[in-house]
Amino acid sequence: MNAEIMAVGTELLLGDIVNTNAQYLAKELALLGFGIYRQTTVGDNEVRLEIALKEALKEADIVITTGGLGPTPDDITKEISAKVFSQELVLHEPSYKVIETYFRNNARAMENGNQKQAMFPASAIVLDNPNGTAPGCIIVGPENKFIINLPGPPREMKPMFENKVKPFLLQFMEHTIISKTLRCIGLGEWDMATRVKDLIDSSENPTVAPYAKDGESILRITARAKTEEEARMMIAPVEEEIRRRIGEYIYGIDEDTLEDVIGRELVSHNKSIAIAESVTGGMIASRLLSFEGGMSKVLKEAFVTYSDESKMKYLGVKEETLRSFGAVSEETAKEMAQGLHEATGSEVCLVTTGIAGPTGGSEEKPVGLVYIGIYLDGSVHVWKRYFTGGRERIRIRTTIAALDYLRRLMNGIEVIE
Amino acid sequence: MNAEIMAVGTELLLGDIVNTNAQYLAKELALLGFGIYRQTTVGDNEVRLEIALKEALKEADIVITTGGLGPTPDDITKEISAKVFSQELVLHEPSYKVIETYFRNNARAMENGNQKQAMFPASAIVLDNPNGTAPGCIIVGPENKFIINLPGPPREMKPMFENKVKPFLLQFMEHTIISKTLRCIGLGEWDMATRVKDLIDSSENPTVAPYAKDGESILRITARAKTEEEARMMIAPVEEEIRRRIGEYIYGIDEDTLEDVIGRELVSHNKSIAIAESVTGGMIASRLLSFEGGMSKVLKEAFVTYSDESKMKYLGVKEETLRSFGAVSEETAKEMAQGLHEATGSEVCLVTTGIAGPTGGSEEKPVGLVYIGIYLDGSVHVWKRYFTGGRERIRIRTTIAALDYLRRLMNGIEVIE
Repeated sequence: MNAEIMAVGTELLLGDIVNTNAQYLAKELALLGFGIYRQTTVGDNEVRLEIALKEALKEADIVITTGGLGPTPDDITKEISAKVFSQELVLHEPSYKVIETYFRNNARAMENGNQKQAMFPASAIVLDNPNGTAPGCIIVGPENKFIINLPGPPREMKPMFENKVKPFLLQFMEHTIISKTLRCIGLGEWDMATRVKDLIDSSENPTVAPYAKDGESILRITARAKTEEEARMMIAPVEEEIRRRIGEYIYGIDEDTLEDVIGRELVSHNKSIAIAESVTGGMIASRLLSFEGGMSKVLKEAFVTYSDESKMKYLGVKEETLRSFGAVSEETAKEMAQGLHEATGSEVCLVTTGIAGPTGGSEEKPVGLVYIGIYLDGSVHVWKRYFTGGRERIRIRTTIAALDYLRRLMNGIEVIE
Repeated sequence: MNAEIMAVGTELLLGDIVNTNAQYLAKELALLGFGIYRQTTVGDNEVRLEIALKEALKEADIVITTGGLGPTPDDITKEISAKVFSQELVLHEPSYKVIETYFRNNARAMENGNQKQAMFPASAIVLDNPNGTAPGCIIVGPENKFIINLPGPPREMKPMFENKVKPFLLQFMEHTIISKTLRCIGLGEWDMATRVKDLIDSSENPTVAPYAKDGESILRITARAKTEEEARMMIAPVEEEIRRRIGEYIYGIDEDTLEDVIGRELVSHNKSIAIAESVTGGMIASRLLSFEGGMSKVLKEAFVTYSDESKMKYLGVKEETLRSFGAVSEETAKEMAQGLHEATGSEVCLVTTGIAGPTGGSEEKPVGLVYIGIYLDGSVHVWKRYFTGGRERIRIRTTIAALDYLRRLMNGIEVIE
């Protein structure tokens, strides 16, 4: 079966926001084995939306829309979807009650627009929305065609797709498509692709495809088979061969993040960690603490030591060191890591110091120069790096590098100079 | 004139990467005064691309494509664009020479595919690409219609658009469109829209449109006029009326972020700030330090006080307080803020404590309960909030609320309970 993804919203059409929903839905639909012919974005315009829906339904069996289910008059997706299938909207009592309760609980007056959010075509399967006020729906049209209306905000749309639309779509699946994603850090997309070029070029089923995202290089192995188990058995030997060649760069699979991998390692071995950040200013702590598996057991405290004084006060960095070598130096990073261990007693101590810019650089120490220090098992390791790309990018790249070095150290993998 | 934006690439269609080109082009074209009817994404498929281009040209005067100009056989955008206008490709000598030189300089052998990159319709205006090997082109068709082929990688596409396509398109400009964006925090999109409903409903030129993004509610005022100056004069009275009604929620305009606004305020008044984060764990410090205007002048140190011990050790929170009221309590938040001031001497002290989950909640203190404390001008203020939406979302919403409360306090605006 074929699907088209249609985003509705003038804010998307005019470029105010990036359409990340299309990517999410495309990926999910591909995994389900749907053919995707097209993604479209249209504005909150009745005529245009109607034309786009009719065009889409010429080719696609299912059109999934996102956006335009809100309470305001320019939210028209459901109305036009019904119109395209020549259906009328009627009040859906259960949805009305939910919305009514929501407003009562929040002590707010319900308006006409909110009643509109409870109107659906009589034939529709209504998809309730625990994360917002706009329910979605699956509208059944003639010739086994469907329009599925989902809300626009990703945090409402994604759970609705995952929990309600996916189970509905499963009935149309002829085969399954399973992917496994291998996530690499420290290896550019081009380098990665070169090292497994023959696997990419010759791949048919499973296919091997490289791409890059957020400072990571990613390889996706995708197999098509009758069952999930069969697909996974086809993926295994390809993964093994890839790991043989670039295994040390692969930090995780699928939805893993670097902080998940490190968090799991720390918590499962009950290894305490402390962090002292200068250039990254809280970014490393914040990322590590987004791990859901009980970081409070191992992370008791962290510092943003942004000034020279705070480096001396909390980490015991010597004034002499700061004067002779500067705050951005190997010597300072070393003393920060050692001092952090002494101040907190933590088994793992991670520190950063550097120049994120835009000002503060010099010929000798340009913007983008950073030092990453790690205390582990009685030794301090310090790495010097240059990153480019503006203040925020330099901070993010330092954060990723620091976490990757920690991962490597903890797993006994050499850090590449 | 009307434009359609068309992304070509199976990696986009299947959701491997997010299409940020569409947003960039949409924004640029809107500023130039083009009407944008639709954005489309199609795969590297000859038949589908031809259908999509023909459909687009029914409505649009200009179709701008991105992607599919590379050397491989599945790069077909230029070929199909020419076919749609019934034109043949011929070798473009200057482009061929550039590509040849590129390969000679990089000591790589030129392949057939690279010669393909120098083939263009005879009528085309070729756009050279200093950032890659694929030149773009403007293909002139019948009835004053154009197809403009741009490369897919944003760092090649954007300079080509900016330096070559924009000057070409300027000849078609009849008027300019200028937008001003007002950014609100603490007011839901619906509440915001209700308070300025008459302005939204009656708006024609300028138009007023609401939308929501990343926990903010946004109003965009857009005016169409002969000159930018004239458009700005049309926007001014509408903005004034909106500010009269919801001014206290508006923290910034256009590309402002909350951290920019607070950072500017702190640095310009040379007001020192310290932060101690429990539930947000470095996120507030990290966001504030992304401000580019010299935060190191005012932020010397910050803490992630994740454990009870660290709250006592660094902030002087009393053991008795933690025992009687718990770490997540008004009393603890108060002592954290007061203690942070005493430990650091900072004029502004911002603290958070709460339960981000997924575990650690109780009936009395559920996941999502947070306290935000601020020390300012000798007084400590504490607010209790409940946030929903999972660990990361709770941390982000706490960060946004904390920064907004600080903005309000510093500007003498009451914090809404």
